Amino acid sequence: MPDPLRLGIAGLGTVGAGVIKIVQRKAAMLQARAGRPLSISAVCARNRDKDRGVRLDGYAWEDDPVALARRDDVDVFIELMGGADGPAKAATEAAIAAGKDVVTANKAMLAHHGQALALAAEERGRVIRFEAAVAGGIPVVKALTEGLAGNEIIRVMGVMNGTCNYILTRMEAAGLPYGDVFDEAAALGYLEADPTLDVGGIDAGHKLALLASIAFGTEVAFDAMELEGIERITIEDIKHAADMGFRVKLLGVAQMTGRGLEQRMSPCLVPAASPLGQLENATNMVVIEGDSVGQIVLRGAGAGEGPTASAVMGDIIDIARGTRLSTFGQPAASLKKPKTAKASVPAPYYLRMALQDKPGALARIAAALGDAGISIDRMRQYGHEDVTAPVLIVTHRTSRSALDEAMEGMEKTGVLTGRPVAIRIEDV
Amino acid sequence: MPDPLRLGIAGLGTVGAGVIKIVQRKAAMLQARAGRPLSISAVCARNRDKDRGVRLDGYAWEDDPVALARRDDVDVFIELMGGADGPAKAATEAAIAAGKDVVTANKAMLAHHGQALALAAEERGRVIRFEAAVAGGIPVVKALTEGLAGNEIIRVMGVMNGTCNYILTRMEAAGLPYGDVFDEAAALGYLEADPTLDVGGIDAGHKLALLASIAFGTEVAFDAMELEGIERITIEDIKHAADMGFRVKLLGVAQMTGRGLEQRMSPCLVPAASPLGQLENATNMVVIEGDSVGQIVLRGAGAGEGPTASAVMGDIIDIARGTRLSTFGQPAASLKKPKTAKASVPAPYYLRMALQDKPGALARIAAALGDAGISIDRMRQYGHEDVTAPVLIVTHRTSRSALDEAMEGMEKTGVLTGRPVAIRIEDV
Repeated sequence: MPDPLRLGIAGLGTVGAGVIKIVQRKAAMLQARAGRPLSISAVCARNRDKDRGVRLDGYAWEDDPVALARRDDVDVFIELMGGADGPAKAATEAAIAAGKDVVTANKAMLAHHGQALALAAEERGRVIRFEAAVAGGIPVVKALTEGLAGNEIIRVMGVMNGTCNYILTRMEAAGLPYGDVFDEAAALGYLEADPTLDVGGIDAGHKLALLASIAFGTEVAFDAMELEGIERITIEDIKHAADMGFRVKLLGVAQMTGRGLEQRMSPCLVPAASPLGQLENATNMVVIEGDSVGQIVLRGAGAGEGPTASAVMGDIIDIARGTRLSTFGQPAASLKKPKTAKASVPAPYYLRMALQDKPGALARIAAALGDAGISIDRMRQYGHEDVTAPVLIVTHRTSRSALDEAMEGMEKTGVLTGRPVAIRIEDV
Repeated sequence: MPDPLRLGIAGLGTVGAGVIKIVQRKAAMLQARAGRPLSISAVCARNRDKDRGVRLDGYAWEDDPVALARRDDVDVFIELMGGADGPAKAATEAAIAAGKDVVTANKAMLAHHGQALALAAEERGRVIRFEAAVAGGIPVVKALTEGLAGNEIIRVMGVMNGTCNYILTRMEAAGLPYGDVFDEAAALGYLEADPTLDVGGIDAGHKLALLASIAFGTEVAFDAMELEGIERITIEDIKHAADMGFRVKLLGVAQMTGRGLEQRMSPCLVPAASPLGQLENATNMVVIEGDSVGQIVLRGAGAGEGPTASAVMGDIIDIARGTRLSTFGQPAASLKKPKTAKASVPAPYYLRMALQDKPGALARIAAALGDAGISIDRMRQYGHEDVTAPVLIVTHRTSRSALDEAMEGMEKTGVLTGRPVAIRIEDV
């Protein structure tokens, strides 16, 4: 019988417990597929006494993840603690220094330290695998790194934060304002301890930055991403968008432009009939466009015990089979520092504003757009509410800088109450 | 510089030419990702003089694919000729015997000879990779074999023949009968030389049989598949289905049941709002359900030069990187001969029949269903056309054997003109 692949698991939350359940319950199936047994040598978590619904008594216990990472009886260090720095990073570095392979679900750590960790691992001939860090159970890291490796990637897009998609689709279905649904999501336990990670787009932005690195052969550049959360999206935006055949999504887009790598994680309008537009609840979707393959769409659960554990197991089985890959699909030393660009790809925009009841008000708004070289595709003025009237405008394709100029011009007209809301319409 | 991976390409149709274009035009990108250069040593096709839009003058030419497969300067034999037997099989066997790895797009060959070829390859430590054989550019073989390898697979479903999906969605969009759209598809070059391969469900059935082998750890069992084509689907079926919120798809379903492996490729009704129901034109979709991951949906182009070449390139890059996998995800010698079952999973059915204008006719039909233990979910009788009235029935969940009994009972009533059409409603 071939030697077992020996695992050390740090972090025994739902995902860690899920991985242990699969290793315990599916041993024969895993051995048939991996070509060798999988065994767990040691585990580590903050609280030894908590009941996690799995038996741990066959495994050594470590209080310190760094000690776990260095154990002689561990071949692969499974990092499921989370957090960009602190124990997760210290233990991952220790594992690499001790010559272990690493499997992690930690998008924050890789978004901030992926390049340094990948370099360290590759110097020692070790691999870092992170399927579980991006879009939960969807094997998208593998699709991009391996299955589509013959393509020059044109664009990667994704709805990769289930909580935000839940909030947006629930607002629409129930006609509820953002605050009410946010509170609902909090009560259901859908939000991170720091909810800004979710609704501010940071968590999804981490994931997009990792995919962009693989897609474009560039160092992870999370800091250069344009980030905008869903906090300013109103139920009116969602309703108006629906009237015009769109839905609002927190959409990540990464593409290589003539000006450099562009990465955006922001609310966008997408056609209601498109696969992204039809995405409901907490489901995730990633769209990959390659020069040969065209458009590939991947859809599945983006979080939760089973889906995330499934992704961790896929990485473990790859390592057991002997598959060796550079962390980001090519040697980290060969990844280029990306020149980064902001909003250089023109798009149509949705604009919402409140117009004062003054003669010629609408004409002045239209003129401000025209002065900035922006033409109007569609415009709707609704009946007056008190003294203001909601006005919606969909522009033709324009640059963000022209739009910003137009928005400034509109504010100067003095016929608006407050700054207009602008939402990009992504061509999906 | 590491040694190049040397390719021998047999078959220079659109896919073969597409692969050569990528190797020629993306050499630097491929080398960065694969960790070594890719080179083409030799090519082979029936007609040496045809212009294929790519330069072949740097490559040795072989008239005989078997000779190509045996060349000393070929590491990987790329089989893009097609056909279950004949030259494709002979050359693949020769390549394996000569110690070469094989990449193929040949679903027919693997559906019929996959087990024998996999055994031969694995005895010699060689791999056979076939991403391009299933659903074109969608990396579904990889997703199932690797990314989701930690899952016990519950069910695999797919729309995997673009031509059939084109015909069905075009019939609906244009309101045209089957024959007209079939002729259109033929004129557009969408049909195989033997169109039964497409519209009879055989091509899609080959693909499903390969996925079922990976999913359930069983030998490929194409001969045990229930196969039904789209030839009997009328524009009326499509319209009636749409009225009831369904769409007609040529849907493959493979699942392991208490009675054995069930594989069906047949027209099915699926909810119009489901991802499968929304699939338009020649696009393919595969749905994989795993015990941990839940439902994963993969969508993309199922055929064509670019998508298929993309899949071939993914396999070549895997081999260049040193990835070694059993053909069907576990050693061929460990695959079980499946016990196969037919239509043992109950489902609701859509029934269409033409009722004669006789008193009590509808009651007799309802009685025949009741006698077989089948209850009716919905029934619609349309106005009489001449002397018959179209009747549509959607049953509650029932076994196929009970349905067959009911259909016999209905025919015996003497109030029908012809045998009813029954279409399974798949729960997707």
